[in-house]
Amino acid sequence: MRIRLDISYDGTHFRGWARQPGLRTVQGELEDALTRIVGGAPRLIVAGRTDAGVHASGQVAHIDLDEGQVSRLPRRRRDGDEADAVGALAGRIRGVLGAYPDVTVRRTSLAPEGFDARFSAVWRRYSYRLADTSTGYDPLARQWTTTLRSSLDVDAMDAAANRLIGLHDFAAYCKARDEATTIRTLLEYDWRRGDDGVLVANVRADAFCHSMVRALVGACVAVGEGRIAVDDVVAIRDARMRIPETKVLAARGLVLTEVGYPADDLLAARAEQTRRRRDADDPAS
Amino acid sequence: MRIRLDISYDGTHFRGWARQPGLRTVQGELEDALTRIVGGAPRLIVAGRTDAGVHASGQVAHIDLDEGQVSRLPRRRRDGDEADAVGALAGRIRGVLGAYPDVTVRRTSLAPEGFDARFSAVWRRYSYRLADTSTGYDPLARQWTTTLRSSLDVDAMDAAANRLIGLHDFAAYCKARDEATTIRTLLEYDWRRGDDGVLVANVRADAFCHSMVRALVGACVAVGEGRIAVDDVVAIRDARMRIPETKVLAARGLVLTEVGYPADDLLAARAEQTRRRRDADDPAS
Repeated sequence: MRIRLDISYDGTHFRGWARQPGLRTVQGELEDALTRIVGGAPRLIVAGRTDAGVHASGQVAHIDLDEGQVSRLPRRRRDGDEADAVGALAGRIRGVLGAYPDVTVRRTSLAPEGFDARFSAVWRRYSYRLADTSTGYDPLARQWTTTLRSSLDVDAMDAAANRLIGLHDFAAYCKARDEATTIRTLLEYDWRRGDDGVLVANVRADAFCHSMVRALVGACVAVGEGRIAVDDVVAIRDARMRIPETKVLAARGLVLTEVGYPADDLLAARAEQTRRRRDADDPAS
Repeated sequence: MRIRLDISYDGTHFRGWARQPGLRTVQGELEDALTRIVGGAPRLIVAGRTDAGVHASGQVAHIDLDEGQVSRLPRRRRDGDEADAVGALAGRIRGVLGAYPDVTVRRTSLAPEGFDARFSAVWRRYSYRLADTSTGYDPLARQWTTTLRSSLDVDAMDAAANRLIGLHDFAAYCKARDEATTIRTLLEYDWRRGDDGVLVANVRADAFCHSMVRALVGACVAVGEGRIAVDDVVAIRDARMRIPETKVLAARGLVLTEVGYPADDLLAARAEQTRRRRDADDPAS
């Protein structure tokens, strides 16, 4: 039984999503909670492996439970169906995670046919909050707002952001790692100043390579401070080289807000296609 | 020279506004910072003496500096005027308070003629954020959102809130204290559910007695949970007696957002009137 989990967290006191021995991570806390509930070693597959300090209001993960694990859930009805098991799991997760105020599973649901939190995701959306000298410092929002001691030209930043949109090699905005490819489709990237004076970036792409959102933010900050020109962000991208002017900004301002998936019927149709193709490849099965 | 300070703070780690020996308070931190800057024992007069854990995004205070204190400020110009001194003070305050991320002086300005942060204030506005079972728990907003494990009828709460508006004796919604009067004018009180599902109260009155906002919130929560009827909030008020059904809610959800003052010319005219009356009473002066 595959379960979809919709998760929010304040990343301040986590060393990121991915489990690491001896460190507090979101995956670690959630998997430990699930082990206490259903036993075994449940493994979470996630849409966005956020870095240390990065927050999420719309993270999505899935987990597969075998029959033995499902049978450990306290059913409300003797003839309880899958929905009953999912309801029981949701209640247990709330109970166990109640001890941690900085992470919550907002929704626990039966995954639709063919759903995979990571591989079915067609886009990820992040926001980045930035206060500059003309923004009033808000102590209540400090945990997810990066504060800079400069004055930023938001129109120039928005213009630069818009120019980066499209299918490109973003190697210049990716931290060097063993990634198969640094070619991504940047679907949306814009900057605006909200009513509270805070600058907010909206960034959406099919996928992001490591630290890409924060590098894209850093490039536009260099534009907003007048250190580089609007067009330079494109020149940097096309040169495929990182330059010292565009810093990777702090994790503090970054929130994974939404993950996009195909509609359920499309997921099911795809799963059916894959099955047929596999059957055709291996007629003996 | 009288200085107006516009202040924001996250009240979580403060034992309220008012200075108390051995405890961390907003007044204590700010006065200590001012002592380091101008010497002496500067005393802050405030519009709203918030309780332990209560936040502020629009607190207002004033402070009087004598000539000796003003002379300790590093002027940018040799013939620096008052504005120059205020600018220097603002810079020093930012520098000293930079060590505390949970309190900030958003604006430091020369107070207009006749201005008193406490006695000139004509109204105070608070907001209260409340999550119920139909609200998604938001780990990032937990420091200023009170979470209840019940389902609230926001329309009934708003109706009850509206009925409390007006000039009344609010003794039933005040914590027993040596207050001269518990008669207040409640100017606005409404409840709505925001886009994020959080219930938000907007409460404005000429002044509030102790714990009044949180008692007014508690009364509407009792209505929202169906424990008392909409009209009961008026009956309780008019009986001038606290009842156990209406709890005083947690400080966590409460923010002082705004303080209203008369226009500068009106403040000056009032100050002039007071001076004339005093001269008339005491012709020898």
